[in-house]
Amino acid sequence: MKPNFIHTYVSVDCVVFGFDYENRLNILLVQKHDEDDSEKKQIKLPGSLIFSEEDVDDAAQRVLHELTGIKKMVLKQFKCFADPMRASNESDIKWMGTEYKHDIDRIITVAYLSLCKIDHKINSSKYSTVDWYPIDEVPALPFDHNKIIKESLVEIRKWIESDFSIIFELLPKKFTIRQLYQLYSALSEKYIDIKNFHKKISSFNYIIPLEEIEKNVSHRAARYYKFDAKIFKKNNSKLIK
Amino acid sequence: MKPNFIHTYVSVDCVVFGFDYENRLNILLVQKHDEDDSEKKQIKLPGSLIFSEEDVDDAAQRVLHELTGIKKMVLKQFKCFADPMRASNESDIKWMGTEYKHDIDRIITVAYLSLCKIDHKINSSKYSTVDWYPIDEVPALPFDHNKIIKESLVEIRKWIESDFSIIFELLPKKFTIRQLYQLYSALSEKYIDIKNFHKKISSFNYIIPLEEIEKNVSHRAARYYKFDAKIFKKNNSKLIK
Repeated sequence: MKPNFIHTYVSVDCVVFGFDYENRLNILLVQKHDEDDSEKKQIKLPGSLIFSEEDVDDAAQRVLHELTGIKKMVLKQFKCFADPMRASNESDIKWMGTEYKHDIDRIITVAYLSLCKIDHKINSSKYSTVDWYPIDEVPALPFDHNKIIKESLVEIRKWIESDFSIIFELLPKKFTIRQLYQLYSALSEKYIDIKNFHKKISSFNYIIPLEEIEKNVSHRAARYYKFDAKIFKKNNSKLIK
Repeated sequence: MKPNFIHTYVSVDCVVFGFDYENRLNILLVQKHDEDDSEKKQIKLPGSLIFSEEDVDDAAQRVLHELTGIKKMVLKQFKCFADPMRASNESDIKWMGTEYKHDIDRIITVAYLSLCKIDHKINSSKYSTVDWYPIDEVPALPFDHNKIIKESLVEIRKWIESDFSIIFELLPKKFTIRQLYQLYSALSEKYIDIKNFHKKISSFNYIIPLEEIEKNVSHRAARYYKFDAKIFKKNNSKLIK
């Protein structure tokens, strides 16, 4: 008897993070019109089955490009989701049939993280609607997309822990220390004192003060800073910090 | 026309690290007799196709159990390898046909890291031969196994960077600071001064000195230490270190 090995489709799904003006982490979700009911929309993570001659990393780059119009986005593969029941919901099976014109039962997916400045123009060639959703306002999604998003939050923390330069992908090119603090707080699991944060940050030679301050703000105008990737790279990572 | 989506088998492959008495990182490789030629042996990473009702993490635990006889091993999924050409070599295709009794063309694999104390007894229920190989003596392996091993070295460094407690999985329960230093040096990419290392380590309250020193050694007998996982866990990780 032949052993019963999986023989399946493989997809990629992308969790793209942004940071909004109310200091909240957001992610990009897409909508497609339901063919049977044009009023009903399916909100989900952007993703795609991979083609037969395509590597998964290339598929993720393709999905991100079709999603945003941006040619090269930072991305990181973080986990293969392969629970045998992840695509067993009746409406999910129906959706896969309509979308991919195949009889699909099981499907495994490789999940990716990506980061995008929230004011970047989104030019999707594939999706009718692409929207930012604050993390705590994400609705119930098909498949295990809510689980993927939940795990992506743990992963983005780890990513920034192992490479702090990643955090600057979410900030405008020039930013205030308060903005950096607020993003850091949104990503961190515990309270950080702003004075200690200022002290720590001012010891980092790769965060460069600019000769420019905020304009038209009600509070005391703060100085702008920029991130210097070259100086950052010189500070090699160590196993013990 | 139907788009040409991948429809494939999925496997797991495990890179199990150990640390030997000559201060070298080793990995476990397995051999199976070639059915056509009993003299010829196929050396490779331990792995398996996943079953149709199996999650990838469960498949990796199964492979590790069949490999070592150990019930629960530390493991970490690190990457999905899906290069369309990774299993295109003629001998690899032939091997898959013999091993799995299926016509297999393309195959993607999910790679895992695991760690094992090198003096642990290996009781494989599946493989005829299981051996430790020093990292720099690994022969040419089938598929992209050499590439997987190369990338696993980067991943084990990242893993220890993000969770230093992992390093103690590779050491005996009681160890000297010299052993820890030598393991750390083997994992690190750059030279570390042993005096600075001693100073750093002695500031870690989770590395506990024991009332026991080395016996029958030619050099000055060193004190043994143990790792306290509970104290380690109390020291929360931070995004900025």
